[in-house]
Amino acid sequence: MLGTMSRSIPVSTRSRSEFIDITATVDDVVKASKIKAGLCHIFVPHTTAAVMINENADPSVHSDILRWLDKHVPAGAGYAHSEGNADSHIKSALIGPEKTVPVENGELRLGSWQGIYFCEFDGPRPRKVIITVSER
Amino acid sequence: MLGTMSRSIPVSTRSRSEFIDITATVDDVVKASKIKAGLCHIFVPHTTAAVMINENADPSVHSDILRWLDKHVPAGAGYAHSEGNADSHIKSALIGPEKTVPVENGELRLGSWQGIYFCEFDGPRPRKVIITVSER
Amino acid sequence: MLGTMSRSIPVSTRSRSEFIDITATVDDVVKASKIKAGLCHIFVPHTTAAVMINENADPSVHSDILRWLDKHVPAGAGYAHSEGNADSHIKSALIGPEKTVPVENGELRLGSWQGIYFCEFDGPRPRKVIITVSER
Repeated sequence: MLGTMSRSIPVSTRSRSEFIDITATVDDVVKASKIKAGLCHIFVPHTTAAVMINENADPSVHSDILRWLDKHVPAGAGYAHSEGNADSHIKSALIGPEKTVPVENGELRLGSWQGIYFCEFDGPRPRKVIITVSER
Repeated sequence: MLGTMSRSIPVSTRSRSEFIDITATVDDVVKASKIKAGLCHIFVPHTTAAVMINENADPSVHSDILRWLDKHVPAGAGYAHSEGNADSHIKSALIGPEKTVPVENGELRLGSWQGIYFCEFDGPRPRKVIITVSER
Repeated sequence: MLGTMSRSIPVSTRSRSEFIDITATVDDVVKASKIKAGLCHIFVPHTTAAVMINENADPSVHSDILRWLDKHVPAGAGYAHSEGNADSHIKSALIGPEKTVPVENGELRLGSWQGIYFCEFDGPRPRKVIITVSER
């Protein structure tokens, strides 16, 4: 019998664009599942947000990524979409709404410098992330 | 015993670049699988196409995303690849050829505004999408 | 009882930026797993590398993709991150650190023109790729 776990976790964002570290939250779900080896899927049910895995040490990496996105996908640059957040949708499409991470020895098998980030591109808003852990 | 289902579904595209809503098709495979909880993987076996999850309501979001891609990855801009579709390969690499979506209560656990799209970047062509549903 | 397999494979890169074909390596893990149908997950535990699925025939496609990334995410362009590899992190975020591929008849169900590539954006370095095969 395979262990399984799926959880919907609330995330509160505070700015129009920001990356929020959800690594500990995801790891808590992995540990609660008691699954020792498998995969963990992280999904945002939103069209102006994303999930990114990247640098967990120097916060300037995040500001560089956000600045690159803002420069290359500027807000309010003559888009057809009337809600003023076309750039947010494009950023979400580029970074992507989901990632999968291996689970080993009952925890996320991330690299030393990797963290998991909720990417807000049209906040602040109450958001959700859906975490599914599957045993191999 | 886990329920399982894998299906290869034909998709016909009509333009060089377009997004085709395949949400209902994917949901039909999920329902046919009778799997109640798990994950659904959507894969395109093509190098000039992609799978995107984004806005399902206002079609202007799609035209904004396509226009952004055409502006930043223009066709015929001095590429080395001789087939005239280097831009299509780059767009495919940026959006990505596959996505995974949670399954809950026997259906796709998408957000209210999310749809699943086959992204054609070098059509029109007959294409395929491979859908795999796994029980947790 | 489900078959399972997870392997960590070393990858040696030789340039600052390059794509290394790991398709045969991934397929070897699939075959060693003896899993006939399921999914194969390919993950890089690094923040300046990525996994891409794209053209396996004409190498000019890869040079076009690398050139596009270098043009749009130039190295040393006034980033805040002090290690000189902010561009590598941004490229990693755009292409993404992981991909999932269907497994059918005991092998990767890739399209005819698809290969799996380790994307180095801050080499040369010794790297790793973690391959997980799950039976459906």
